[in-house]
Amino acid sequence: MQRSLWAFALAVTATSALANSKETSNTQWVDTFIGTGGDGHTFPGAVVPFGMVQLSPDTDNPMRGESKQAEIYKRCAGYHYDDHTITGFSHTHFSGTGHSDLGDLLVMPMTGEIKTSAGTADNPEQGYRSRFSHDKEWSEPGYYGVELQDYDITAEVTATTRVGMHKYTFNSADKGHVMFDLTAAIYNFKNKVIWSDLRKVDDHTLVAYRATNGWARNRQMYFAIKFSKPISDYQFINEDDNRYRCMGCLGKEKHSTIENKAVKQAAGKAVKFVASFDDVKGAPLYIKVGLSAVSRSNALENLNAEVPDWDFDKTRQAAKAQWAKHLDKVDVTGTVAQKRQFYTALYHTLQAPSIYQDVNGQYRGVDGEIHEGKGFEHYTLFSLWDTYRALHPLLTYIAPERVSGMIQSMLVHYQQSYEKMLPIWSFHAHETWTMIGYHAVSVIADAYLKGIRDFDTDLAVEAILSTANNPVYDAIPEYKKFGYVPMDVLPESVSITLEYAYNDYAIARLFESMGKTSLSKEYYARAMSYKNVFNNETGYMRGRDSNGKWDPDFNPFEAKYMGPFTEGNSKQYSFYVPQDVAGLIDLMGGDDKFEQRLDALFDTHLSDDMIKEHEDIAGLIGNYAHGNEPSHHIAYLYNYAGKPWRTQERIRQIMDTLSSDKPDGLAGNDDVGQMSAWYIFSAMGFYPVAPGDLSYAIGAPQVEKVTLKLAGNKTFTTYAKGLNAENKYIQSVTLNGKAFNRNYLTHDDIVAGGELRYVMGSRPNKAWGQRIDARPPALSEYKE
Amino acid sequence: MQRSLWAFALAVTATSALANSKETSNTQWVDTFIGTGGDGHTFPGAVVPFGMVQLSPDTDNPMRGESKQAEIYKRCAGYHYDDHTITGFSHTHFSGTGHSDLGDLLVMPMTGEIKTSAGTADNPEQGYRSRFSHDKEWSEPGYYGVELQDYDITAEVTATTRVGMHKYTFNSADKGHVMFDLTAAIYNFKNKVIWSDLRKVDDHTLVAYRATNGWARNRQMYFAIKFSKPISDYQFINEDDNRYRCMGCLGKEKHSTIENKAVKQAAGKAVKFVASFDDVKGAPLYIKVGLSAVSRSNALENLNAEVPDWDFDKTRQAAKAQWAKHLDKVDVTGTVAQKRQFYTALYHTLQAPSIYQDVNGQYRGVDGEIHEGKGFEHYTLFSLWDTYRALHPLLTYIAPERVSGMIQSMLVHYQQSYEKMLPIWSFHAHETWTMIGYHAVSVIADAYLKGIRDFDTDLAVEAILSTANNPVYDAIPEYKKFGYVPMDVLPESVSITLEYAYNDYAIARLFESMGKTSLSKEYYARAMSYKNVFNNETGYMRGRDSNGKWDPDFNPFEAKYMGPFTEGNSKQYSFYVPQDVAGLIDLMGGDDKFEQRLDALFDTHLSDDMIKEHEDIAGLIGNYAHGNEPSHHIAYLYNYAGKPWRTQERIRQIMDTLSSDKPDGLAGNDDVGQMSAWYIFSAMGFYPVAPGDLSYAIGAPQVEKVTLKLAGNKTFTTYAKGLNAENKYIQSVTLNGKAFNRNYLTHDDIVAGGELRYVMGSRPNKAWGQRIDARPPALSEYKE
Repeated sequence: MQRSLWAFALAVTATSALANSKETSNTQWVDTFIGTGGDGHTFPGAVVPFGMVQLSPDTDNPMRGESKQAEIYKRCAGYHYDDHTITGFSHTHFSGTGHSDLGDLLVMPMTGEIKTSAGTADNPEQGYRSRFSHDKEWSEPGYYGVELQDYDITAEVTATTRVGMHKYTFNSADKGHVMFDLTAAIYNFKNKVIWSDLRKVDDHTLVAYRATNGWARNRQMYFAIKFSKPISDYQFINEDDNRYRCMGCLGKEKHSTIENKAVKQAAGKAVKFVASFDDVKGAPLYIKVGLSAVSRSNALENLNAEVPDWDFDKTRQAAKAQWAKHLDKVDVTGTVAQKRQFYTALYHTLQAPSIYQDVNGQYRGVDGEIHEGKGFEHYTLFSLWDTYRALHPLLTYIAPERVSGMIQSMLVHYQQSYEKMLPIWSFHAHETWTMIGYHAVSVIADAYLKGIRDFDTDLAVEAILSTANNPVYDAIPEYKKFGYVPMDVLPESVSITLEYAYNDYAIARLFESMGKTSLSKEYYARAMSYKNVFNNETGYMRGRDSNGKWDPDFNPFEAKYMGPFTEGNSKQYSFYVPQDVAGLIDLMGGDDKFEQRLDALFDTHLSDDMIKEHEDIAGLIGNYAHGNEPSHHIAYLYNYAGKPWRTQERIRQIMDTLSSDKPDGLAGNDDVGQMSAWYIFSAMGFYPVAPGDLSYAIGAPQVEKVTLKLAGNKTFTTYAKGLNAENKYIQSVTLNGKAFNRNYLTHDDIVAGGELRYVMGSRPNKAWGQRIDARPPALSEYKE
Repeated sequence: MQRSLWAFALAVTATSALANSKETSNTQWVDTFIGTGGDGHTFPGAVVPFGMVQLSPDTDNPMRGESKQAEIYKRCAGYHYDDHTITGFSHTHFSGTGHSDLGDLLVMPMTGEIKTSAGTADNPEQGYRSRFSHDKEWSEPGYYGVELQDYDITAEVTATTRVGMHKYTFNSADKGHVMFDLTAAIYNFKNKVIWSDLRKVDDHTLVAYRATNGWARNRQMYFAIKFSKPISDYQFINEDDNRYRCMGCLGKEKHSTIENKAVKQAAGKAVKFVASFDDVKGAPLYIKVGLSAVSRSNALENLNAEVPDWDFDKTRQAAKAQWAKHLDKVDVTGTVAQKRQFYTALYHTLQAPSIYQDVNGQYRGVDGEIHEGKGFEHYTLFSLWDTYRALHPLLTYIAPERVSGMIQSMLVHYQQSYEKMLPIWSFHAHETWTMIGYHAVSVIADAYLKGIRDFDTDLAVEAILSTANNPVYDAIPEYKKFGYVPMDVLPESVSITLEYAYNDYAIARLFESMGKTSLSKEYYARAMSYKNVFNNETGYMRGRDSNGKWDPDFNPFEAKYMGPFTEGNSKQYSFYVPQDVAGLIDLMGGDDKFEQRLDALFDTHLSDDMIKEHEDIAGLIGNYAHGNEPSHHIAYLYNYAGKPWRTQERIRQIMDTLSSDKPDGLAGNDDVGQMSAWYIFSAMGFYPVAPGDLSYAIGAPQVEKVTLKLAGNKTFTTYAKGLNAENKYIQSVTLNGKAFNRNYLTHDDIVAGGELRYVMGSRPNKAWGQRIDARPPALSEYKE
């Protein structure tokens, strides 16, 4: 790849240390551009594992009211591979979300005439943005570089956990300018910036602040900015029309910029600052930007603590070394394309939940208050409806040292929340209440059951009970009263019922493991609530009102807004009983009928109208929507009907049609690593259908060999003998040399270490994994 | 007075404890309505000494762009005695300022139909405001009550340092409503509210937040609100047009109010909340409002710590007891009107600088960061250009225990300021840069020289040197280079030069006292800079450019905006050499010519045009403007020319024409107690012309007898024998029985304790205090 060559050329000229790590580390396989095309919504810029800073180029900042929704949606991560201009480098980005926010502190170097607005993609020369080409763009984990064509500037960025570092090489101009645009944002609109300020402290230092009202409301971010050269000239640009006139002050007009000998500060809703530098041709200009959600002084402390010097390459190498440490925990044997896909997926799973705490321990809680994290690292960004499924279970293997901190962060969120709720979809000290269920319980249960318990377990029990019985969240009282959420109480009532029931199963498993027998029974019973929305007449999950009456307008394909289903229809959601697939099979009429129902999902051609109706659904195979989470477990369900070869077919079908190592290689939003985690599990040949039950449905391995380096110097290796384009079917399986006939793996199987060896062939072995005792137990078997 | 009768009637019915303190304490003489008429700009509501909360009725909230400036200016303190309607009770107010801000969290009870806007004074029934009458309005220190006629509600408020308490007695309605209007503000304009939110935590509790951009930019205030009864119904009113549409969230419209079963919160720029209560007829509704500049949780902590119960009368009595403790330190013998005037003035001098710190020690610093005050109480509201003159010197006697905390607060301001400057005009964590000079040094020097040194004196030296040599503030480098501020460098250059020179004198005195001889000499030399703007040709202080050329457009009456003088003209400012009046007299041609110049100031009739030109100048006697600070010392200057009887005449003239015990009894803005402090000193017969020199020019006592209770069980009593309408002249003076011939008193004279006895007569005794050795020493005498 051109990109790789560039990166290599740059690396070796920059420092000889580079070559060492480059050759041996799996960082070499990561292509940060995978997912930046299509609707992957990942970003290509610099980030360290679970870092607070995501310093990445933005290719457009379309505004609501001025741009089509599709154009805005396309740039959830700031950058889209289709674009040909870069507006600048901003310091915070989501990876793969289906809604967006962030894009804090856009920085853009330029030369020549100072432009004060970004301009348009069609007429970039009218603004400070620059054309760029993918041919002159390169990246590696923790680093991104690009030639800004309009200015002949080589722009490079790297990051630590809390600091972004910029390196601007002005290849031809003597004088350089750097724009700091506090008005730029992702998912921007006219009044998104509530308030901002920027102060020139001295010739080398700025501090800034911004509060935005977006997905998170009144989200606070503070910045400390240091330059390697003194600012020679500067200008404040204040486009805030809300000028303040001081009437008692001798009639002097005061407004939101104060700029006199003493004070150099602009404040308001539309503040920009341009710093100019003389003699930039000789050596690159470096800029360090420290972030904090707490205060300007914490931002400065973060900056000084994490990047005390001006050594860009050292910072870059440190970032890469962090990635190598994480990525080298997994060894993959496969084709280049497979390795690129696998390690990039792994890279995407190691970004969030992300650190949200300053080096001095302070962080902003969901109550808006400043807290100090005592004895744990504080994380933010819980996209739990997505990530409970595969990302969090995966982290228990690839980043187990982070899991307790993530859980403790959810527990303090509970403590600090006014509603006494565990997080639903929260980031940057704000609960967005996006999506449904209370899936935090699944993450806690899965980790606890796996023995990760370095969090306040008493508090966890309290938080879970408060959440699952919350008198004010959605329709929990009605769910408890009726056994389902009545559709006349709340939209999305069927999806909510089904997800509550799964969540309750996870709780039951946790309490059982804790010896809380009576509570465990209660939640096992609640976990059966799915049956209350299963309509025998139609054979589908169906809306039901508080009189017990079934939805008269029921249509299993319908996925309308504010209907009984969440980002999906009954065709899909009728399969959402991960905790008791055996029970669901019974309801649906047995193994064969269940198989037919699954096939109907995959093979039904949806009309364009129906597709249009689906919100945030991409990656379709029939009505199966790989691009959105409610489908993620469905291909594995054939196993439960004793048809594992059908799962094997479907996994290969999904892999072949809906994923690749190209920029558009993700079939839909990566959803903060969930899609990537699906890929990693599935590529190894198994998947957690019901996190908390400690089992993994065996699918079909997609790479020859994967070795997970586990805690305690153990390794777990999957080996797919004979895997190739034709050989998609499992013929047999051995675990540590012994025949393995179950069609599911357990957590214990994995952590014991050893080798899981699949023998692959071109025709299904229908005998393997077919028998009842080869299938995961039904939910009823867990209960007395 | 009707008001007093009401208060009494209410007091005795409310609690028998009231009568006890009422009878004996000097609180009985305070009329909180003095200064609420005219341009006094004081507020009548509830406050405790130096309290963070000033809970007071607002009679109008005129908006910039919708109202005339005069209407806005009139309501700098929210309330004006001319008004006939009350819009509500807000929790923060300046006392007597000439510019304004604050008015945080307006609360208004109502009955019947819920009104969601305030309505107008002309048509109060269109809004939630109510008519009221001064006949049904009563107050005492720490308490205010009024009948809200439109609703038949008796509204009463009281306060602790950080908590406001409301008592609403619904006299006829069964159902009551309470409006919380986060859009209301003093000096309001359309976008003044940057952001606000209000959350209903439970049926008894709200928390709220507001950031405003006004005189202070992005000023933060947090609120915790508790009700004595449960809220029965409520509504959020969100008039914010900046609604946020969540595009990825199933197309659901999200905006800045979330109101569902889990969350009851509105946020945005235009948030109001109405709480309704059933069965309010039986017993009053009480509301407690805790304030904090740090956080919602601190606001709640403040609330719980300071008002743990629902006993309104106890809180009211505690507030009154605090006032009694302070006011009873001074005993006045005089007429009822004199006592009303004196004690109300004393009351106005005991309000600011005010506490700006939570009970847990945290406060917001001028850097916007949260700090913890260690070993001192943190104060805000430094209107230093006004208050260095008489208020701060007075506080060293009447509240000496507060002074070191105030100074330490200025020192941490210095530390926390980006400019490394002591405060100029700061409040609520913001430096407004209003007015000129660096008068904080005067406050520090005066206190230190008087032996008040319980602050970090090393830090004080550092802060003073940094401030007085600041490379970025106004024109200090040019002042040091040229010996004056050139008029081509900065407007107000003459006033600034003169005030710097006085400030430098105060510094010199401090350093001399500290034994820093060399520094002291340097600042004594700087203190003579006033001579560099004295123009011999005209005999006036006159603008001068950086080439030494005098202002060619000089007109001693001119007070134009951005001219060489600050809120005044050369006629007035030519007398601004408090540190060396003897030197000024020499420049002006000796004692007699100086007297003539003073007379010319007092006796010149100004044209209407000239009066109009003056900014913030009121209380004119000729060109003498008692309503603004540059004139405050001038009447005392006759003493320095050996004409103390002329000072005696002028003081009486000012007292008779420019002050009274009526609502319009202040001749201009009280300026955070400065005007009141002028009154107190002057009424006792002396005034600090040059704080820091420890001397007080003797004027003419205006009340028969005043006893100050000083530290160490000492008292200092002034006794004006024979004082009456005719006997305005001093015949003779004795101090502790010994003849006292100096026309100035010293700090040592006061703190030694004893009795200063003036014998008054109807004709001047021109022999007393006339001789050179009876006058304060010239500045040259301080220096080697």
